[in-house]
Amino acid sequence: MNKRAVVLLSGGLDSATTLAIAKSEGFDCYCMAFRYGQRHAVELQSALTVSKALGAEEFRIVDIDLAAFGGSALVGDGDVPKDREGKEMSSGIPVTYVPARNTIFLSFALGWAEVMGAFDLFIGVNAVDYSGYPDCRPEFVAAYQTLANLATKAGVEGKRFTIHTPLIELTKAEIITKGTGLGVDYGLTYSCYDPDKYDLACGHCDSCLLRKKGFAEAGIADPTRYGTGA
Amino acid sequence: MNKRAVVLLSGGLDSATTLAIAKSEGFDCYCMAFRYGQRHAVELQSALTVSKALGAEEFRIVDIDLAAFGGSALVGDGDVPKDREGKEMSSGIPVTYVPARNTIFLSFALGWAEVMGAFDLFIGVNAVDYSGYPDCRPEFVAAYQTLANLATKAGVEGKRFTIHTPLIELTKAEIITKGTGLGVDYGLTYSCYDPDKYDLACGHCDSCLLRKKGFAEAGIADPTRYGTGA
Repeated sequence: MNKRAVVLLSGGLDSATTLAIAKSEGFDCYCMAFRYGQRHAVELQSALTVSKALGAEEFRIVDIDLAAFGGSALVGDGDVPKDREGKEMSSGIPVTYVPARNTIFLSFALGWAEVMGAFDLFIGVNAVDYSGYPDCRPEFVAAYQTLANLATKAGVEGKRFTIHTPLIELTKAEIITKGTGLGVDYGLTYSCYDPDKYDLACGHCDSCLLRKKGFAEAGIADPTRYGTGA
Repeated sequence: MNKRAVVLLSGGLDSATTLAIAKSEGFDCYCMAFRYGQRHAVELQSALTVSKALGAEEFRIVDIDLAAFGGSALVGDGDVPKDREGKEMSSGIPVTYVPARNTIFLSFALGWAEVMGAFDLFIGVNAVDYSGYPDCRPEFVAAYQTLANLATKAGVEGKRFTIHTPLIELTKAEIITKGTGLGVDYGLTYSCYDPDKYDLACGHCDSCLLRKKGFAEAGIADPTRYGTGA
């Protein structure tokens, strides 16, 4: 039996690549995604499709109760910003922001891992494209790993949890190149913050722009299905 | 305006005392409780009542989606053990066990604190009565505090989160003495794992036994409403 890993999946490009890497390292992968008021349920559908395509053992969705934080502070009621570049893109809170997000996600992953007897957690955080996120930095991940080993019975008994972040120092182009080499079908992944009524990508939100740039820089054809306005 | 604190409340004796201590230290208290398949909703009703009695500013319940872990590993389907003592009591997983529990609870508290601009979190963990719990130890709490300061924008900007654990080294009797001095009405709190149909305490489960012993050792009258079998 292979070792089990819990892999956090979002339906996007980064986490799909992370899952492919975990599989390539020989783990049986148990995928966890979160429903927390995203604009489009299609993201979770993509996560499920990706988990199947890449041969995950299981896929589970956790409902995160955002009302607990007072929803209005979180869910983007306004328009999704379009055609922003560089520094401008890094400023402001994205529409999918959840306070203490990766801390909460990893805590659920840790809980599931504890139940299953898994000691490897994979998360597709990246410190390059969105360097402003505190919970995407290597020092956050290191602190979480320390915590995981103190928080659980298994950790106390001498087993060691590892938080794997294989993308943390890669550019979007490098991520795409890596995943393509591992057979990821990026046409199944989903990044757009503001799709049209057919769930086609807008091509202009921050997430679409980063994704387009990544494919361009990698020299790989972009399989994203864009809408007519893109 | 007073400083705000997020206080984790369970409806039990320890967290009520923790709330009273936070209030006595001058904090405006925002209480958070969790619904995660406890046997009895009365526990959450107690948490609400306690929060009002002790003058909390707000009380919120977070639904924790336990199905994500595969419920059967968690929810005690069997009978609640009765009349156990000492070492025997410390063994085995209590019916209210949640994997990575305090990690998940603190992560939601951290998220709410981040939204509110609060930097003080109170949790009534105790390393004396249940010394077997890894996530009740001072080193777990210290690691969580380190994490909180790395996980959040506020932490990165130099503000400092503090995880307060005022009960961590106290015996049950000391906790009761302390709370009584601060005006906690322990008749409002709720500890029993196996109440009768009138929500009266059984008097024999681990939690009832610890509570009874605490009142006896503190020399304070036990206000718990016990059922006829107690």
